[in-house]
Amino acid sequence: MSILGLDLGATKLAAAIFSEEGERKYVKTTPLDNRKGAEVAELVCIEYSHMLEIANSLNERIIAVGVSVPGISRKETGTVWAPNIPGWDDFPLLEALQAVNPGAPVTIDSDRACYILGETWQGNAQGCSNAVFLAIGSGIGAGILSEGEILRGSHDIAGCVGWMALTGDFNDEYRRYGCFEYYASGDGIGRMARRYVTENKGYSGILSEKEVSEITSHDVFGAFGKEDPIAVRVLRECISFWGMAAANLISLLNPEKIIFGGGVFGPAAMFIPDITLETARWAQPIGMKQVTIEVSALGGEAGVYGAGYLALNSL
Amino acid sequence: MSILGLDLGATKLAAAIFSEEGERKYVKTTPLDNRKGAEVAELVCIEYSHMLEIANSLNERIIAVGVSVPGISRKETGTVWAPNIPGWDDFPLLEALQAVNPGAPVTIDSDRACYILGETWQGNAQGCSNAVFLAIGSGIGAGILSEGEILRGSHDIAGCVGWMALTGDFNDEYRRYGCFEYYASGDGIGRMARRYVTENKGYSGILSEKEVSEITSHDVFGAFGKEDPIAVRVLRECISFWGMAAANLISLLNPEKIIFGGGVFGPAAMFIPDITLETARWAQPIGMKQVTIEVSALGGEAGVYGAGYLALNSL
Repeated sequence: MSILGLDLGATKLAAAIFSEEGERKYVKTTPLDNRKGAEVAELVCIEYSHMLEIANSLNERIIAVGVSVPGISRKETGTVWAPNIPGWDDFPLLEALQAVNPGAPVTIDSDRACYILGETWQGNAQGCSNAVFLAIGSGIGAGILSEGEILRGSHDIAGCVGWMALTGDFNDEYRRYGCFEYYASGDGIGRMARRYVTENKGYSGILSEKEVSEITSHDVFGAFGKEDPIAVRVLRECISFWGMAAANLISLLNPEKIIFGGGVFGPAAMFIPDITLETARWAQPIGMKQVTIEVSALGGEAGVYGAGYLALNSL
Repeated sequence: MSILGLDLGATKLAAAIFSEEGERKYVKTTPLDNRKGAEVAELVCIEYSHMLEIANSLNERIIAVGVSVPGISRKETGTVWAPNIPGWDDFPLLEALQAVNPGAPVTIDSDRACYILGETWQGNAQGCSNAVFLAIGSGIGAGILSEGEILRGSHDIAGCVGWMALTGDFNDEYRRYGCFEYYASGDGIGRMARRYVTENKGYSGILSEKEVSEITSHDVFGAFGKEDPIAVRVLRECISFWGMAAANLISLLNPEKIIFGGGVFGPAAMFIPDITLETARWAQPIGMKQVTIEVSALGGEAGVYGAGYLALNSL
């Protein structure tokens, strides 16, 4: 008996066959190649069929499927909103996948829900009933586990932590991204570095070797390693925002774990001790003693593990 | 058949007999008169017995009891931590109350949990499964309803929103209160007014008629009504913090309602339209469309109604 996890991202689809104990038996990644709308669903169905064949060849049978989607899974309708897949405003993904193999239950959930479920199953949140995965990538979102269940809110969009208000003064640019995401996402790191390079006419450090408009978070982490003052400033500010955000999650939700993940953690994993110190300044002090702050154990695999766990939970 | 709600505060005990439909048939308030430790529990038990007699005299029978406590209810042990009742670090309240009338179930929960339950039962959150009561009194806390259940966290202290980090810069004084509570609680309103009066040597407005050290939030609301510039400044800043906090609750939890209550709402109820405008600047925009921001319908009675609803839910 095996289960299948499908992790649909904005640019690629990862598929993994797991044992019920969480052992990964087979994994495959397929690029979306700019597919849109129904073409993306078709690819997901083809890969699902392909995985059924692979499982057969391994003398295994896939008995349940979980799917992580880069957006919102609307439970009542079986439809998906995915802002980075053209045509997926309310796409009927559940129906399409159920038709592939009518015997196996299909469960769909948001990527951020899958991240924390993946960590709960095989990562750093094992044994936790109350935990948060703070996903810092080009954007920012959180998967929140409360009493063992994903916290969804009234319309399935709980966890939009990129919109957290963390500065006293409002800036009109926050309206596009949210205040926290504006500064402390991967895109935010690039944005702040570009601003500081532009503002500091006398600056001649590593980041000035590139066209200002092309500086990314990747460049900032590289320059930080060489003690570039602008990179240090940008990432110090991020540590402060990451700590404040973690503190707010602790004071509000009283979790056992805060797991930092997403593309930025990754290179920012080395800052976990600094982030923890910053968090401790702001958080409710009893709640702070009851939590640990860690980096994702699964990294880029958290979504596909979470999808596998969705499948397991449906049995 | 009736149910009993007991709302234990730091200075008084309110008791109310309700029908199962939420009609309040009898209500009584008793001051704690500086009682401590076991004396407080004794008073609660005496009032419980007294209410059984009252119910008898009304030809009613109390079949369940709910108790709101000003602190943390530890479900597993039946004990209560209440920082403002001396000796209640881990007080065995459940056992004491069960002995009064062994036939009726007793349920204890925190005041902030009871506030949102009260609004759900008979107030402005009726019909909601996801809602937050933001209690702004001398301190700040929140009762969070998620999927119809109180959100508790790993150790029953979720909802410590007074500790929310809302300013970019850390101030060591936040360590005592939390950043949000430091500025925007009843105590915070008095604190900021005292600071501004002290800093503004040339100020000769209404608040200067009093010894600076004695200015309270009550004075600030009075002075605001007469357009005193310091009172206006303090409360404008509060509106900004209240809006940011509501926005963070919306972005994180995607609730249907945010209910402002506690002693400050009250006089701050007139600011709900301004707070809503401020909230809308910061909150995740889809979640903002899915929420309404209101003032408590039950005011100072939210706790006792919530205690009644606890009792009803135990049946």
